[in-house]
Amino acid sequence: MKILFSFLPNPDQQVNLIEEFPNAEFIFQKPFDEETLKTADIFVTYGEDLQACHIASAHHLKWIMVASAGLEKMPLKEIADRNILVTNVRGIHKTPMAESILAHILSIKKSLPTIAENQRNAEWSKKVNSSELFGATALIVGPGAIGGEVARILQAFGVHTIGCNRSGESANYMNEMISFSQLDELLPTADIVLSILPSTTETRHLFTYEHFHCMKRTAIFMNFGRGDVVKEEELLRALKDECMAYAVLDVFENEPLPEGHPFWKMDNVIVSPHVSSHSSQYVVRALDIFTKNLSKWIEGNNRMENMIDLEKGY
Amino acid sequence: MKILFSFLPNPDQQVNLIEEFPNAEFIFQKPFDEETLKTADIFVTYGEDLQACHIASAHHLKWIMVASAGLEKMPLKEIADRNILVTNVRGIHKTPMAESILAHILSIKKSLPTIAENQRNAEWSKKVNSSELFGATALIVGPGAIGGEVARILQAFGVHTIGCNRSGESANYMNEMISFSQLDELLPTADIVLSILPSTTETRHLFTYEHFHCMKRTAIFMNFGRGDVVKEEELLRALKDECMAYAVLDVFENEPLPEGHPFWKMDNVIVSPHVSSHSSQYVVRALDIFTKNLSKWIEGNNRMENMIDLEKGY
Repeated sequence: MKILFSFLPNPDQQVNLIEEFPNAEFIFQKPFDEETLKTADIFVTYGEDLQACHIASAHHLKWIMVASAGLEKMPLKEIADRNILVTNVRGIHKTPMAESILAHILSIKKSLPTIAENQRNAEWSKKVNSSELFGATALIVGPGAIGGEVARILQAFGVHTIGCNRSGESANYMNEMISFSQLDELLPTADIVLSILPSTTETRHLFTYEHFHCMKRTAIFMNFGRGDVVKEEELLRALKDECMAYAVLDVFENEPLPEGHPFWKMDNVIVSPHVSSHSSQYVVRALDIFTKNLSKWIEGNNRMENMIDLEKGY
Repeated sequence: MKILFSFLPNPDQQVNLIEEFPNAEFIFQKPFDEETLKTADIFVTYGEDLQACHIASAHHLKWIMVASAGLEKMPLKEIADRNILVTNVRGIHKTPMAESILAHILSIKKSLPTIAENQRNAEWSKKVNSSELFGATALIVGPGAIGGEVARILQAFGVHTIGCNRSGESANYMNEMISFSQLDELLPTADIVLSILPSTTETRHLFTYEHFHCMKRTAIFMNFGRGDVVKEEELLRALKDECMAYAVLDVFENEPLPEGHPFWKMDNVIVSPHVSSHSSQYVVRALDIFTKNLSKWIEGNNRMENMIDLEKGY
């Protein structure tokens, strides 16, 4: 059994894998070699390096483990046609992402950018206009593992949480649930609007100017899912019209955000370069999911964690 | 009954007070007039404007309501000699302060200052060295109402909380409790060391270079209590020696922090100009405590909230 990684766990992690699975042949290559992939049974990747042509020639490939949550750069149709199993690391982002999201919310609420600017100017100023998170309302669009973790922590801060998904069916740590069709109705009540939607045909350009226009002018809009959920030029217009107080963006329609893009210079925009899920624990947790699944795979147990429904794309 | 305020609640709040207590005479003066104080029964103040000489001539004064938590600028001896009741607003700081403290911790852990600097330079850089709060250990020195609220929220983030007070007696939301004498022993285990001690003879210069020296080099030291709890020149030396990664300071031995003070320019120091308790809800909550106490006072009920033991000073 040949297992090809297209990223490099640290040397200790590599040794642990080899020792834990002595009957497997591990190959670590960054970038991976196409010839090696042709004979690999399992491919472990961050999900950005696989092309349809690779699938065509990877005759032995039975399982692709994506050490990421987003699958939009994967040739899903070709993978589905070949009936190759795909798993991802859904859930491992929830801790670092919830912490990043809370960091940005609290930073704005407690005026940390102003405090930092005053420090740069060596200016002792108490005029910082802090507000409170306690008693606020958060609308969480896409309440999966990450959204639930954000909501759990927000509730500890005394925030009212409203989840929003396709069907309106219940989700963890939400005081209320609504469906996409009720978004317009509830947007005017929210102090924080957080999108953590994946990129699918249904979510593409879900947020338009009309949505931003019905937000509170004091509200914070946050996109920590995928950039194309938002029509960027419409968000730009809404920000210029001051429809909301802040946009905090970890994802963009085009990444990296192009040089000269107006977002870089806007006072009411925080540009986070798609790093909210970064964590020193990332690879540790990804390998933990992988090794559990690999043990099941070897046993012939097909109830593996985080299997992807290739038709739905998540 | 004459009630003198030395700060100005907003017009609606003033009207509400007058309507709720029709038999009281309310006077709102900023700054207050010494002649008026001579005939006042109750004085409501932020606690920074009262001198010993005022007490000597305030013959009618029976109760001082301090709309703040710190009493160190009050002439406590003269007040005690005259047997004047003092109450404060202990507890109303807990929500805004806990939010401010969490904001700073998360901002550092999730590299928000680096992200902001990269945005100012229009630089898309994923090298931000974020770490996680989950699994960290926080040592909270002075675990009262504020410390308990911080600990409650930290626990929601998966942080292990250790409280530290004079006696080591238990406090809310602490996984462990230690006394001041055990501080040296536990400091090396903490990722976050938070002081929220009041200024008393016992706490003055409690933190010395030796304490900072036994902290983790990756740890964050935070002072959100009173500046003189820390020997500032020793903290400065410890920061230069990189005994810790960051100091986040909301309080200082001398406030405002003097122009030219090295803290202003140090990369590993966050200067917050004593604003962590600021909140749009501050006066609302202070008046809420005051009116409840005033009702009790009028009834002759002496079990008022937040009465100060003038000997202890808190």
